Amino acid sequence: MTSFPFFQHISSDRSSLAREGVIRTRHGVVPTPAFMPVGTRGTVKGLTPDTLSACGAEIVLVNAFHLWLRPGTERVREAGGIGRMMGVDCPVLSDSGGYQIHSLETRRTVTEEGVSFLSPYDGAKVFLSPEISVAHSEALGVDIRMVLDDLAGAAAPPARIREAMERTHRWALRALNAWDPGTTAPLFGIIQGGVDRALREESARGLVSLVGSRGQSFSGFGIGGLGVGETVDERLSVLDATVPILPENRPRYLMGVGYPGDILEAVRRGVDLFDCVLPTRNARNGSYFTREGAIAIRNARFREDDRPIDSSCGCATCRRHSRAYLHHLVKNDEMTGAILGTIHNVSFYLEIMREIRARIRSGTLSGLDWPCFTTRHAIGGDS
Amino acid sequence: MTSFPFFQHISSDRSSLAREGVIRTRHGVVPTPAFMPVGTRGTVKGLTPDTLSACGAEIVLVNAFHLWLRPGTERVREAGGIGRMMGVDCPVLSDSGGYQIHSLETRRTVTEEGVSFLSPYDGAKVFLSPEISVAHSEALGVDIRMVLDDLAGAAAPPARIREAMERTHRWALRALNAWDPGTTAPLFGIIQGGVDRALREESARGLVSLVGSRGQSFSGFGIGGLGVGETVDERLSVLDATVPILPENRPRYLMGVGYPGDILEAVRRGVDLFDCVLPTRNARNGSYFTREGAIAIRNARFREDDRPIDSSCGCATCRRHSRAYLHHLVKNDEMTGAILGTIHNVSFYLEIMREIRARIRSGTLSGLDWPCFTTRHAIGGDS
Repeated sequence: MTSFPFFQHISSDRSSLAREGVIRTRHGVVPTPAFMPVGTRGTVKGLTPDTLSACGAEIVLVNAFHLWLRPGTERVREAGGIGRMMGVDCPVLSDSGGYQIHSLETRRTVTEEGVSFLSPYDGAKVFLSPEISVAHSEALGVDIRMVLDDLAGAAAPPARIREAMERTHRWALRALNAWDPGTTAPLFGIIQGGVDRALREESARGLVSLVGSRGQSFSGFGIGGLGVGETVDERLSVLDATVPILPENRPRYLMGVGYPGDILEAVRRGVDLFDCVLPTRNARNGSYFTREGAIAIRNARFREDDRPIDSSCGCATCRRHSRAYLHHLVKNDEMTGAILGTIHNVSFYLEIMREIRARIRSGTLSGLDWPCFTTRHAIGGDS
Repeated sequence: MTSFPFFQHISSDRSSLAREGVIRTRHGVVPTPAFMPVGTRGTVKGLTPDTLSACGAEIVLVNAFHLWLRPGTERVREAGGIGRMMGVDCPVLSDSGGYQIHSLETRRTVTEEGVSFLSPYDGAKVFLSPEISVAHSEALGVDIRMVLDDLAGAAAPPARIREAMERTHRWALRALNAWDPGTTAPLFGIIQGGVDRALREESARGLVSLVGSRGQSFSGFGIGGLGVGETVDERLSVLDATVPILPENRPRYLMGVGYPGDILEAVRRGVDLFDCVLPTRNARNGSYFTREGAIAIRNARFREDDRPIDSSCGCATCRRHSRAYLHHLVKNDEMTGAILGTIHNVSFYLEIMREIRARIRSGTLSGLDWPCFTTRHAIGGDS
C-alpha cells in the first residue's frame, strides 16, 4: 500500500526560495502556494458554496474559536462537520482563535493553564486551553488545524513577547500530546516571537524539534503574530530568519497576511499557505484589486466606465459587468454590489496564486511584475 | 414570413379563468403565468445574474423611474441597455414609476402635464410626463414597459380616485401616441379605479378601447393601484370585475401583489404576470416561504434543525444547506444568510409558477392546495 505524504514539494523557483507543492487531505488536494478565503464564522462573507467554488477556491479557512461560541462545536459536529454545514466540497482549515483572543476587547486572562474570557457574543465566561482547542477542531471535522497560541502585538515590551513565545511552545507540546496523528486531522504549530529575529529563530527551532509523547511532530508550521502593527521590512526580515529553519517536507503558513505584494514576497521566501480578509472586506467597501493596482469603485471616474474591473480577469463579475454598473450598485448600497465585488476580489487572489504556481513551475517567477504587487496601499493604510 | 404574436394563449384551466400562455420578446420567451423578481434599481437584491438564472427566472422587473434618477437613462443606454448592464439573459419589464411617485415622501405635484417632484436621491427638481416616460423606457432597452399612471391609495376619497383614473386614461392616450409599436418594445396600459368595481370596469373598458393616432392599441394591461391598503376581498372583487373585460390575446399583469395565495387566486381569475418584493425582502429578514407556510428562521426551534428550508424544494440553498446553518448565519447578520434565503424564496416563487402552469395544462389546478396558498400572513401583516 502506498501512503501519500500530507505535503509534497513538487518544484522550486530558480531565483528564490519559492516552491510549488501539494497538500493532500481527506476532502481533496490543495496545490500550493495557496490562498484561503476567510470564512471565520462558517461562511465566506457574500459567497455561497457555488460562487466560492466558481471563484476557484481550493481550501477555505474557518475559526474554531468563533464556531465554538456560535453555533457551537457540538452543533457543527451533529450537522456532519463544518464543511458539510457550509456546503463546501473543498478542504477546510481551522485557526484556533489565538489571534481573536488577543484582539478581544472584553477582559481576558491568560494563565499557564489557558485563557479565560468573556464571549464577545453574549458575555458568558468561557475557558480555552490547548487541549480543549484540539478537541474542538477535531469535533468540527476540519482537514487542517492550528494549535492554540499566545501572541503579543508589535508594540508589546520584549519581556511580554518572550513570555508569549515561551507559553506558545509549552501549549504547543500540550496540543501535540492531545492530538492523535494516526486518526485525526493534521495539526500545525505556530511560530511566535514578534519582530525579533533571534526570538523567531528560537521559536522555529523549538517547534520543529518538539516531539509528543507518542513520537508525533507537527504536520506544518504557522507563522503567527504578524499583521499586528509591524512594518513590511520587519515582517520580511522575520520570514528571512524563520523559513529556512523549517523542514522542507512540511507546509509553511503565513497567517493573516496580506496584500498581493505581501503574498508574493512571502512566496519568494518559501511560504506555502495564506489567508487574509482583505479581498472580502475590501470588496464590501468597494475597493477592488486589479493587475494595475487597487481601485475605489465609488470614485466618480468610474461612473461611465464600461470596462470590466480588470480586463484580464476571467471571473463571473468581469465577464458580465462593468465598472459603471458596480459604481451604480455600490453608490446605492445594493448588496449585489458587495457580492459581485467579493466574487472578483476572491477570484483575483486565487488567480494570483495560480499565476505564481505556474511561474514557479516554468521558472519565470522573477518576471512577475504586475503593478498590483508593488502598489501595496493604493486605497488606505489598513493591512 | 410568419409573424409570431407578442402573446399567445396556450391552454385554459377547466375550473377557473386560469390560463397558460407565452410572451415573446426580443430577449426570449416567457411562459405565463409568470412571476418577475423585482430588480428596481437594476439589480435583484442579493442575486447575481448567474444565481438569478439558477433560481429559474425567465423575466425580471426594473423601475424606469429609479433608473432614470440613478444611474441615469442615458448612462444605461450607453452601456447597451439595462439587460446588458445587469448582465441578465432574460427579458426585462420596466415599470414607469407611477407607484413610486405616489409613495414619495418629498413633495410632489401632479398636474395634467405630468408630475413634478424632488428626487429622493439628491432632492433635485425633476419632471416626468407620459411622453418622457415612454422615451426613457425606450432608451433603457427593456422588452416590455408600462405607461405612466396616476394612482390613489385605498383610503383616498372617491373624487380623488376618479380623478386619478381619468388622468391615467388621458396620460395613457398620450403615451400611446408617443409610442411607435412597429420598432420599439410593447407598451402596457394600467387600469386604475381603487376598489370601486364600477370605476375599475370603466377603466378597463376605457383602456381597452383606446386607439392611438397611428391605430395602435396597448400590448397588454396592468392592474395597478392595488397592494396599497385594500383588503384581500376588495382586491379579488376588483379582479373579478376587471379581467373579463380584457381581451383574450393580451397579457394581464397584477402589479406588486403578493403572497403565494394572492398569486394563485389572481391566476384563477385570469391574470398572467406578477411581481412582488416579498420573496426578496422577506428573505433578508429571515422569513422563508415553504409549501407548509412561511417560517421565521431566527426562531430558536431551528437552531438544531438539519432539514432544508423546504424538503421538496430543488433550489441551490435547499440542496446544500440546513435550517440550522441559515439560523446561524441570520442570527449573526452574515450576508450569506440573506443571499441563501433570497435564492430560496425567489426559487420557491418560480417553482410555484411552474407548478401552476403544469396544473393548468393538466387540468389539475383546483387540486393545488399546499398550505402556503392559504396561510397568507404567517409572519407579519406586511403585504
